[in-house]
Amino acid sequence: MAAPTRARLRPEERRAQLIGIGLRLLTTRPIHEMSIDEVAAEAGISRGLLFHYFPTKRDYYVAVVRAGGDRLLLHARAPEDGAPGERVRGIVDGFVSFVQRRRDNYVAVVRAAAGGDERVLEVFEDNRRVLTDRMLDAAGVHDPTPLHRLAVRGWLAMAEEMAIGAVDDVITTTGLVDLLVSALEQVTERFTPRST
Amino acid sequence: MAAPTRARLRPEERRAQLIGIGLRLLTTRPIHEMSIDEVAAEAGISRGLLFHYFPTKRDYYVAVVRAGGDRLLLHARAPEDGAPGERVRGIVDGFVSFVQRRRDNYVAVVRAAAGGDERVLEVFEDNRRVLTDRMLDAAGVHDPTPLHRLAVRGWLAMAEEMAIGAVDDVITTTGLVDLLVSALEQVTERFTPRST
Repeated sequence: MAAPTRARLRPEERRAQLIGIGLRLLTTRPIHEMSIDEVAAEAGISRGLLFHYFPTKRDYYVAVVRAGGDRLLLHARAPEDGAPGERVRGIVDGFVSFVQRRRDNYVAVVRAAAGGDERVLEVFEDNRRVLTDRMLDAAGVHDPTPLHRLAVRGWLAMAEEMAIGAVDDVITTTGLVDLLVSALEQVTERFTPRST
Repeated sequence: MAAPTRARLRPEERRAQLIGIGLRLLTTRPIHEMSIDEVAAEAGISRGLLFHYFPTKRDYYVAVVRAGGDRLLLHARAPEDGAPGERVRGIVDGFVSFVQRRRDNYVAVVRAAAGGDERVLEVFEDNRRVLTDRMLDAAGVHDPTPLHRLAVRGWLAMAEEMAIGAVDDVITTTGLVDLLVSALEQVTERFTPRST
C-alpha cells in the first residue's frame, strides 16, 4: 500500500516506501535501468530528498536488494523447537512458499543481484550465507565443514530454481517441499561421515 | 590469442575476434557497462565496422552470451555410445571441468545473462533447455515429463553452483562429478515411477 503522494512520512516510513517502490519497479526492468527520478516521482518527493535517505544511486540499489533478501529470511525460518526434520521442513516450506507467492519479485531481486555491482552482489552473498547456516543448524550439522557449506549452497540453488519453475500442474508446493527436504537429507548425510 | 591490431580479418574471423574480446571484458565489468567503443578499440577497428557485424549493441551482447553458452555445450557432451551411466558421467564431467577451468569467465557470462535484457535471457534459457534435454537423453529418460525437466533444471542449478564454488581443498573435480552423477540418478529415479 503506497502512502498518499506528498504525504509527510516519518524517516523510517519514507525509507520503507522508497524501497517498496524499488522492489516493485524491479519486476519491470533491470536494476541498472531503474531511474532515481522515477522512484522519487512515484514517491511524490524530490530527487534531492531521495538522496537524503540514500546518498548515492548505488546505496539505494543495495538497500532494495537487501530488503528483498531480508523478506526472504523473515519467511524461511525454522520453528524454535522441534526435531531436526521439522525444523528443516519449516525453513524449506517458508522458502518455497515465499518464492512462489511472489515469483516475479523474487526473480527480479535475484537478477538485480546478479546484474548489479560488487556491493549488491555482496549483499546477496551475505543472504545466502545466513540461509546456509540456518539450514545446517536446523539439519543438526553443528560443526559444518566447507564441503557441507558447498553442498547446502548447491542445494539452495536447486531449491530456488525449482521453486521458481514449479507450477501447480507439475508439482504441488507440498510435493516440492517433500522432494527438497529429502534431497537435503541426502546431501548432509553423504558428507557427514566423510568429513568428521 | 587475439589477432594483431588492425589486421585484415575475414568476416568470420572478425566476428570471432569481437566476441572473444566481449567474453574477456565481461570478466571485468557487468555487460551493461561494457562499451562498444572499447571493444572496437581493442579490435583495432572503427565503431562503424563493429556495427557492420552486429547491427546494435544488443545484438552484440546477445552474440557474446550465446558464444559463451555454445562453448559450454561443446564441452558438456556425452560419448556417442556407452551405457546411460557413462553418458551421464561424460556430460557432468565436461560441465564441471569446463566451469572450473574458466571459472571467472563462466560466472561473468551467467551474470551477464541474468543482468541482461529479455533477448539475452532467452539465449541463456535456450542453452539450459538444450543441456536439460541432453542430460535426460543420456540418463535414458526418453519421454520426459514436465517434472523430469523441472528436476533436471534444479539439478543443473546445483551443479553450476557447486562447480563454481568448489575449490581443490574442499572437493576434487572427480569427487564433485561422483556426487553430481549420483544426485542426478536420485532425481530421475524418484520421478520416473510417479510420473509414468
